[in-house]
This record gives sequence, C-alpha cells and structure tokens, in this order.
Amino acid sequence: MEIIVHKAIQDEYPDDFAWCYGCGRLNEKGHHFRTGWHGEQTMTIFTPKPEHLALPGFVYGGLIASFVDCHGTGSASLALHRKNGHDVGEGAEPPRFVTASLKVDFVKPTPHGVALKALGTVHEIHPKKWKVETEVYADGELCARGEVVAVVMPSTFIK
Amino acid sequence: MEIIVHKAIQDEYPDDFAWCYGCGRLNEKGHHFRTGWHGEQTMTIFTPKPEHLALPGFVYGGLIASFVDCHGTGSASLALHRKNGHDVGEGAEPPRFVTASLKVDFVKPTPHGVALKALGTVHEIHPKKWKVETEVYADGELCARGEVVAVVMPSTFIK
Repeated sequence: MEIIVHKAIQDEYPDDFAWCYGCGRLNEKGHHFRTGWHGEQTMTIFTPKPEHLALPGFVYGGLIASFVDCHGTGSASLALHRKNGHDVGEGAEPPRFVTASLKVDFVKPTPHGVALKALGTVHEIHPKKWKVETEVYADGELCARGEVVAVVMPSTFIK
Repeated sequence: MEIIVHKAIQDEYPDDFAWCYGCGRLNEKGHHFRTGWHGEQTMTIFTPKPEHLALPGFVYGGLIASFVDCHGTGSASLALHRKNGHDVGEGAEPPRFVTASLKVDFVKPTPHGVALKALGTVHEIHPKKWKVETEVYADGELCARGEVVAVVMPSTFIK
C-alpha cells in the first residue's frame, strides 16, 4: 500500500511564500516536499531523484537535511494552525515558520531508490517557537534522526 | 578581489567517490562544492543558483545545510590528508569521510545573489573521527554556524 500525504500544509501557503527550494509548490526546480498529519504525528514522503547521491546506491546527506528542515517548518505550521482552530484544507492561511536550528544524526547509510518517510513529533516551546523531532525511514528502516527548532517568520523576512 | 579555492580536496577523490550531489565533480546536476585550505582554516565558496530560495531574496536553509555538510567532510579529509603527510595536488589519494551528524544554527536570514563563504576549523576527536566547526558568511556577514562530525567512510558504504 502506498502511503501518501493527502492534505499538505504547503498547498495552503500564500503564493508569496511558495518559492522555497525544499517545499515551495511554485519553485519549478525544487523538491516539492509536502507535509501533513498522520495521526498525531506529521509526515512527509519523498523519493530522491537519481542525482541525489552521496555515493552510488546511497542518498546524499544534504538532501536528508533539507527533507528534515522543510518537514520541520511544515510540521510546526501544521501544529500552530491546529492550535489556532484550523484544519488543513479549509482555506485559512497557515502560519509560516523559519528554521532557527537544524540537527541531523545519520544513523545508517540511506539506500537510494526507495521513498523516504519523515515522521515528526511536534512540541510547543512557546507560541512562536516549536521543536520538531523527526525520524527518517527508508524501506521501513530508521536511517536518520532530526531535530528542528522553528520560529514564526520574523518581519525581517518579508520585503 | 575574488577569493577562490585553488586546490580542492574533492578534485582528488577517486572517480568512484566523485558522485556526491553536494561535492562530486562527476555529478552533472550537483552543486560541485570545492574545499581547500585557507591558512589554518578550510574554505568553500559557492554562489547559490536562482532556484535556491527560502523566500525571494533569501537563501534556502537546506542548501546552507548541504554546504556545511560537504564543507565538513571535505575539511576532515583535508586535515587527515595533511596529518598523513600529504598536500592537496600532489596526487596521493585522500581519505573519504561520511557525516555522522550535522548541526546548523541560522544566525540571520542569508541574502540571495552573493557568494557564500564557509570557513572551517577542524578538530581531531580521534584518527577516524573529526569535528569541523564552520561559519558561513554572505557579503562579509555571519549568517550561519555549523558543526559536522565526520568519520572515515566505513566499509558498509563501499559496494
């Protein structure tokens, strides 16, 4: 059974905030990571492209870091959106986050050629600062652990 | 004055290890990060492509994480290569590292449209495990701090 993300928070970011190389739906050359709820956890699914190699047969760590990064900001947005009383898909504009810090522990080499699944657990530090703990699986095996501290986008980001 | 990396460790990786999306010279679609000595520090220079956005005007954090990652493994390789009595460019095969962990603190939004410079300080933890502390500058301003723990590539990576 293929697992997919039906309702992704990134589908609802305003157009002005949809240019991210990792998760912006309007960035034609980007990865188009999409993050939604999966029970009480958050989930992002992505199949690396042929060029996303560390070595032939294994996925590039920087791609995994990117995956953890956008999964983290998307997860924080999902959680604050829910806390604000909204569900994804109802049309309310979700909050946008930026990454304050990113950490990835590479548990084992990540095989290339299969879908990666990120599962996130979101913790509120305070209303504008959230922590997302992520596990990245390939073919059911845990390959990386990540942690993102995401903060509500500051006005310095908005031109 | 333009600063460039003259002798990069990645130029000397064997062909079988030159496919990394971040720093492999043979990966046509990759970033081609190149890392060399800069005094007692290590240096990597990269100008993000137009699509490497977080928001219009600012660089994607996952790209910065990728930059810190390959800068880290390249720096560890430079340091062990030197410890082994070799200089870059003399033709000896350098040691190859993989990333055990990667951490990036985003100090401020990174402006898009200028070259990024990573400066690394390398610490030996033990002969097969090195830590690289990195500062990422854009236009002379510190935008991110990174830390990579790199280990000599284990045999599980070699097919």
